[in-house]
Amino acid sequence: MTKKEKKPWAGRFTEATDRLVEEFTSSLGFDRKLSRYDIEGSTAHCRMLARQGLLTASEEKAILEGLEAIGKEMDQGTFPLTADLEDIHMAVEKALIARIGDAGGKLHTGRSRNDQVALDVRLYLRDAVKTILTELDALKSVLLSLARRELGVILPGYTHLQQAQPVLLSHYLLAFHEMFSRDGERFEEVLGRVNVLPLGSAALAGTGLPLDRNLVADLLGFPEISKNSMDAVSDRDFAAEVLFDGALLMMHLSRFCEDLILWSTEEFGFVTISDAYTTGSSIMPQKKNPDVAELIRGKTGRVYGNLVALLTVLKGLPMTYNRDLQEDKEPLFDTVETVTASVRVFTGMLDHVAFHRERMHERVSSGFSTATDLAEYLVTRGIPFREAHGIVGRIVRYALEKGKDLKTLSLEEFQAFYPGFDDGVFTLVTPEYSVNARKVAGGTAHETVSARIKEIDPSSFEKPSGD
Amino acid sequence: MTKKEKKPWAGRFTEATDRLVEEFTSSLGFDRKLSRYDIEGSTAHCRMLARQGLLTASEEKAILEGLEAIGKEMDQGTFPLTADLEDIHMAVEKALIARIGDAGGKLHTGRSRNDQVALDVRLYLRDAVKTILTELDALKSVLLSLARRELGVILPGYTHLQQAQPVLLSHYLLAFHEMFSRDGERFEEVLGRVNVLPLGSAALAGTGLPLDRNLVADLLGFPEISKNSMDAVSDRDFAAEVLFDGALLMMHLSRFCEDLILWSTEEFGFVTISDAYTTGSSIMPQKKNPDVAELIRGKTGRVYGNLVALLTVLKGLPMTYNRDLQEDKEPLFDTVETVTASVRVFTGMLDHVAFHRERMHERVSSGFSTATDLAEYLVTRGIPFREAHGIVGRIVRYALEKGKDLKTLSLEEFQAFYPGFDDGVFTLVTPEYSVNARKVAGGTAHETVSARIKEIDPSSFEKPSGD
Amino acid sequence: MTKKEKKPWAGRFTEATDRLVEEFTSSLGFDRKLSRYDIEGSTAHCRMLARQGLLTASEEKAILEGLEAIGKEMDQGTFPLTADLEDIHMAVEKALIARIGDAGGKLHTGRSRNDQVALDVRLYLRDAVKTILTELDALKSVLLSLARRELGVILPGYTHLQQAQPVLLSHYLLAFHEMFSRDGERFEEVLGRVNVLPLGSAALAGTGLPLDRNLVADLLGFPEISKNSMDAVSDRDFAAEVLFDGALLMMHLSRFCEDLILWSTEEFGFVTISDAYTTGSSIMPQKKNPDVAELIRGKTGRVYGNLVALLTVLKGLPMTYNRDLQEDKEPLFDTVETVTASVRVFTGMLDHVAFHRERMHERVSSGFSTATDLAEYLVTRGIPFREAHGIVGRIVRYALEKGKDLKTLSLEEFQAFYPGFDDGVFTLVTPEYSVNARKVAGGTAHETVSARIKEIDPSSFEKPSGD
Amino acid sequence: MTKKEKKPWAGRFTEATDRLVEEFTSSLGFDRKLSRYDIEGSTAHCRMLARQGLLTASEEKAILEGLEAIGKEMDQGTFPLTADLEDIHMAVEKALIARIGDAGGKLHTGRSRNDQVALDVRLYLRDAVKTILTELDALKSVLLSLARRELGVILPGYTHLQQAQPVLLSHYLLAFHEMFSRDGERFEEVLGRVNVLPLGSAALAGTGLPLDRNLVADLLGFPEISKNSMDAVSDRDFAAEVLFDGALLMMHLSRFCEDLILWSTEEFGFVTISDAYTTGSSIMPQKKNPDVAELIRGKTGRVYGNLVALLTVLKGLPMTYNRDLQEDKEPLFDTVETVTASVRVFTGMLDHVAFHRERMHERVSSGFSTATDLAEYLVTRGIPFREAHGIVGRIVRYALEKGKDLKTLSLEEFQAFYPGFDDGVFTLVTPEYSVNARKVAGGTAHETVSARIKEIDPSSFEKPSGD
Repeated sequence: MTKKEKKPWAGRFTEATDRLVEEFTSSLGFDRKLSRYDIEGSTAHCRMLARQGLLTASEEKAILEGLEAIGKEMDQGTFPLTADLEDIHMAVEKALIARIGDAGGKLHTGRSRNDQVALDVRLYLRDAVKTILTELDALKSVLLSLARRELGVILPGYTHLQQAQPVLLSHYLLAFHEMFSRDGERFEEVLGRVNVLPLGSAALAGTGLPLDRNLVADLLGFPEISKNSMDAVSDRDFAAEVLFDGALLMMHLSRFCEDLILWSTEEFGFVTISDAYTTGSSIMPQKKNPDVAELIRGKTGRVYGNLVALLTVLKGLPMTYNRDLQEDKEPLFDTVETVTASVRVFTGMLDHVAFHRERMHERVSSGFSTATDLAEYLVTRGIPFREAHGIVGRIVRYALEKGKDLKTLSLEEFQAFYPGFDDGVFTLVTPEYSVNARKVAGGTAHETVSARIKEIDPSSFEKPSGD
Repeated sequence: MTKKEKKPWAGRFTEATDRLVEEFTSSLGFDRKLSRYDIEGSTAHCRMLARQGLLTASEEKAILEGLEAIGKEMDQGTFPLTADLEDIHMAVEKALIARIGDAGGKLHTGRSRNDQVALDVRLYLRDAVKTILTELDALKSVLLSLARRELGVILPGYTHLQQAQPVLLSHYLLAFHEMFSRDGERFEEVLGRVNVLPLGSAALAGTGLPLDRNLVADLLGFPEISKNSMDAVSDRDFAAEVLFDGALLMMHLSRFCEDLILWSTEEFGFVTISDAYTTGSSIMPQKKNPDVAELIRGKTGRVYGNLVALLTVLKGLPMTYNRDLQEDKEPLFDTVETVTASVRVFTGMLDHVAFHRERMHERVSSGFSTATDLAEYLVTRGIPFREAHGIVGRIVRYALEKGKDLKTLSLEEFQAFYPGFDDGVFTLVTPEYSVNARKVAGGTAHETVSARIKEIDPSSFEKPSGD
Repeated sequence: MTKKEKKPWAGRFTEATDRLVEEFTSSLGFDRKLSRYDIEGSTAHCRMLARQGLLTASEEKAILEGLEAIGKEMDQGTFPLTADLEDIHMAVEKALIARIGDAGGKLHTGRSRNDQVALDVRLYLRDAVKTILTELDALKSVLLSLARRELGVILPGYTHLQQAQPVLLSHYLLAFHEMFSRDGERFEEVLGRVNVLPLGSAALAGTGLPLDRNLVADLLGFPEISKNSMDAVSDRDFAAEVLFDGALLMMHLSRFCEDLILWSTEEFGFVTISDAYTTGSSIMPQKKNPDVAELIRGKTGRVYGNLVALLTVLKGLPMTYNRDLQEDKEPLFDTVETVTASVRVFTGMLDHVAFHRERMHERVSSGFSTATDLAEYLVTRGIPFREAHGIVGRIVRYALEKGKDLKTLSLEEFQAFYPGFDDGVFTLVTPEYSVNARKVAGGTAHETVSARIKEIDPSSFEKPSGD
Repeated sequence: MTKKEKKPWAGRFTEATDRLVEEFTSSLGFDRKLSRYDIEGSTAHCRMLARQGLLTASEEKAILEGLEAIGKEMDQGTFPLTADLEDIHMAVEKALIARIGDAGGKLHTGRSRNDQVALDVRLYLRDAVKTILTELDALKSVLLSLARRELGVILPGYTHLQQAQPVLLSHYLLAFHEMFSRDGERFEEVLGRVNVLPLGSAALAGTGLPLDRNLVADLLGFPEISKNSMDAVSDRDFAAEVLFDGALLMMHLSRFCEDLILWSTEEFGFVTISDAYTTGSSIMPQKKNPDVAELIRGKTGRVYGNLVALLTVLKGLPMTYNRDLQEDKEPLFDTVETVTASVRVFTGMLDHVAFHRERMHERVSSGFSTATDLAEYLVTRGIPFREAHGIVGRIVRYALEKGKDLKTLSLEEFQAFYPGFDDGVFTLVTPEYSVNARKVAGGTAHETVSARIKEIDPSSFEKPSGD
């Protein structure tokens, strides 16, 4: 152990920290993402201390100027962050004292790193969640725009990846609009729980000094202050929630990507993703791969993993603050950045997908995806649904054996299974009929989908189509 | 393949299902938890079908009576559930047809198992979440009651499991009140997303038959209907949310249990858990183990695991319904049951914990947990906090070397580090002074905590203490 | 609390266990899977006790007869398991005493439930892992048999789900043979760590009574005894390993299922899964869904979840035995049963898949999947690979613009990009040429794959093709 | 889209990659950890190409010199890695061509990034696993050394965190030696599966060019080559295994840390962790926190999360290579680095822990932890164990009521429960007697533990005690 400068908290210590330990315990590598929030929080704390008479006016001035100068160094990337400084809080305090002298040692009055880091993370997340909400809005807007543009395009709807029933492409797109809207709701809700001021909780018990927490809350724009100091320094619920909300959002993207990857295959051929959003192969000259969609699907893994990481950290921790909690940050930063980038890139990609309407129509017109319409027709003729299902099932089996599909069966063949069929049957089995029959609320009929678009955005049909 | 009865959907099939496959794919083992919800949903669907002219009055009557009879068999445990019946929906339909004949085959008109199972799970979860909320209320009520009863009891507050500062036991208990309140908030929020009617979405595209979804929603007490049929049959967000909210709740319980287990050790000795909530050893006659607390902590694992299970199932699934989604149920049921039982048993246990006030006081009175008060006192004498921290740190080191603690140092010894100390220092280092100094909002002072109790429950100090 | 019979360990207790607590802590619901192993272990323990003089010959006889009788009741399902009996160990001891009197109270000599349950779980897992290995062998045998049968069938190989290069179906099947072989290796390895006798570790410290652990190991067929009693009662590594090995195995199945589901689509059309391994739709008469494959893919979720569950339980547990460890069993049983059933059902399904060779050939013959062969040909003509890749990339772009593929370009068109092309180019772009060119070790050429089949099973080409 | 340089694979592309997409898909940020392995692999590949006549001697020379120069730039940190270069493979190839011209374009002959990256990761992991094994050996060596040094020190052994039976501190330490030995076994086993050459598998099907894979394997020190090209490019089992083995190892450390944190409390007081491995508080001058132990326990979370991340990525992926697989690297690197650093820092910390033998002895001497010895003594007097357990249980209850413990009861008091007790009872209840009675294999008796130390390291008692 070499002779080293003492840590600010080392009054009672006789030995210096091991260098390996400094590196192992330092959070400076990732704390830099919090640095401007740390300055912002300290600025508000300083103002309050002065207002409460715990700092003189000149001390306040010196500290505020010092913090501003440090903030500038951070912006310029010249602020030094070495492992022996432990964390962003100690780094700032040390730089401040170096710059303005003893007054700098007064900034930490009435607070602890425990409530300070809780503050920084909440300030960071408040911004981060708002950014995600903005990205989600952009994605929803592209979805709506595409739904309007593609209105009328029919493709096979799938269950079990088997052709099930014809659906409007717009209906499909709006299904994802629903999912991303729920994601938005959840992020809005967690924002309320993020937006609570923990500062003033000090180490765990509050402080005996006359702080004004409401003033700090006002200065930092928090609508609420935490109600219990022990809870405030050990609570990471809001972080876990963001990790979960991000996980669900990635799950939705992963499903969308799965479909786009399938639809890009030579076999489906429903879409072409723009060259700008695909990449090639180092060995196979013909390849054009949907890498972006695959990567987003893959990144779901890390976002799930981050959630598990934090839940594991929190399990069985004794009250209140424990150093384990430092491990909340990297998963949080990683999820925020992954989710933000994924939504952004996905939105760009989706806006550059070419939908192959004819191919979709060709696929939905052959086969048996209108079989349910036949059965529902029989129901309107008084046949119990279960029996109607059986009749149509036998028609399908017959057609398969003959190498035909519903479109190519003759009226006689239909009548062999149910004598009441007439010429109208040939209309029943068209995708257009099938889609537009489904006028039930939430169904895929053109008029229902169109109404839903208007409901979401009353002005949407007046917008120029190019947006 | 032996000759077997055909499945209701088997019109197009030529071969019977393999017996192993029937067992593997059957959900009847766990569907029974949905059985009464399936009857409830079918009852509403039947009423609507009749109102819309898709059933005659006599068919309606027959179906309703049949469903009621089947419901009674379920209650009595006599309703047969064998693997070849696939799932609860098919089992009920088959029993209905057996009982009332052809009319039974009309019940499935305009619906699919895809929207039906989504309905059943939502009905189940609506009840389940309400039950969890009720249990949470009971737990919060016990916490509040204990906080009131124990007001004045001081124990060491810990960070890093090292004695940090004296806190009120009531303050500690209210920290958990905050956590469980947030749990309640989250469950309330997800309830809004659970409480949406999916029925009428049919397989994925809606139906061509004239269903009245709003009527069904009214009959079943849903304030809202789903807006997009493709989303409605593939959405399991609400289930994942319940799994996550349950995971956070268990995490909170695991932390509380961790502390109770620690506090029950011979070394801490802060609490005794009632015999009724502990068990013994098969080999060691002296043992009395906090098994309940350990098991709850351990059950956090399964609840985390259930969340991962569903998230994994959903990752990368193509639209819309895929059979993978059947795997949503067991984790959901297991989490609901585990969480409900854990909160219930924990509440009972907590209500039967004896807190050893003298032992707590003895522990908090020795040692150095009031060191921060000394430092904050020096701040009020104009010494910068960082310097004050250093002075007190050196006092602590000195005392440790002398085998003393803050209480047993002499005035001269204090003055050797800061000449301004006077007799008042002996008050400063008492736990009572320390606790009551922390009057900042959210702090641990008696008056702050007492005010917080009143804020939570304005009537609480008027209640008889025995509740 | 009503007057209740005392627990066997309740000498020091004054209050009875709460009934809710009994239910909450009881493991009897799932312990029944261990019951025959508990009898087996107790039988060996009893024999050893007698050999060591801790039981008389008549006591030994009485206990052995009692255990056998209890074992029979278990087999017949008449052995009573009520929650107040706590667990299988207490239930057996109590039944034994009821049946043979005081001598029954001697069976627990020198052991604790801590080492007893570790023994039971190891005995259970030893059988369970062997069963999984047997199922894996059956699956590998079907794969080998199919690989032999389908030798010569060519289909497009995919990367990024885009057609990449032609491959032999047999080569594809053998890729999974590799995966399942690694699964087998891992299960073999964990078997070695399962197969260690923990009995004799007692509660945590061993026992002062003169047990002969090696004798018990011999009687139960354990090649090894545990080396440290504290480790032996708290170790669940072997369980976590089985959960992980199961997770990887399910992951492999999930990938295979994904492909089969894709290949079953109307769009790919590469396979038809037998009716016996698919199911229909309650609403859509034409549907035939690959439910089994979807369910196996979905069940990957629960198996991942089980792994997370146990890892969570174990994280941060103090030494040695804690009741949290009771939570190891349900995830373990669930994974063992899910994995065993999944492999078994998958094997059956795979054996009933019809591969559509013509469709595969049709797909692989059109398009550009032999583009790499063109580039590699240019390399043999001295063109640097990177340049060759560029030339062929331009050919592909040209063909796409002309609506052609490699097969339908004229010699002139090829020569426009590289004058050295001659008639041989038309051979180069056939799937047959492409596949058979890849003679490198591990490649897809017919002779390479055929050699690999022989290497795996030297006798395989002599077997009748019907196996 | 601005005019940009074309990608090496862009022959068939008409549009350039979007800049955001370049950043999103680029792996260069983390690929740098693979850079020297990429050079190593390319060097071997180049030598083989030359030996097979696919490169001339001068081309070989140019490439080797180019690679060496690039490698030096990497070592010096001057090698440019910008997002538009995609990944380390493309970056190296481009730099090579820039440096040596056309010959550089021949390096990629017969390989694809798919097999190349698999090679790089395997080379990386081979080194990484060996490093972990070395760290584990150092930890085991410290454990053994402490076990030898502390032989004779007795402390309470715990189950359920309640004092259970006296154990030797050395026995406790050797329990962890067992755990870390199993960790070592698992890492050794996975090393065998890592150590397989994938190169030569090309994109997925092998190559038509005459590569010599065995030569490359020899040059790179691989004992084995992969057997199936499709498996080789899509297999990440070995990575998942390393993530799992790391998770178990961290779990073991988390348990050890949990105990050290407990033992560091004022309440237990069993150990003092050196100042060099603890840190202080920014607000509380008296604090000395076991941060290192807490952080290691917390880092278990990220290592679990990394495992979940990769398992999620792999679930349900179609064959063969998909871009999702790029997401294998960051979790892998993070786990390798976290595990390596954690073991290293933990070893250092453990070597600087002061064990407080008197405090341990004081704790183990009071109370009831020798109650089992009393019961086992009664067994040797012919009393059935279950009855003996009951007698001692009643003695414990009596003592508790009298405020006594086993040491302070009189002979008369013992005899009131069992008249056969004599003076020897006072020996029975000493920790020394208790510990040394447990001579059963694996037990905690001095002679058993001492023998185990010799078994692990036959030379260990000859070493100087200071190591």
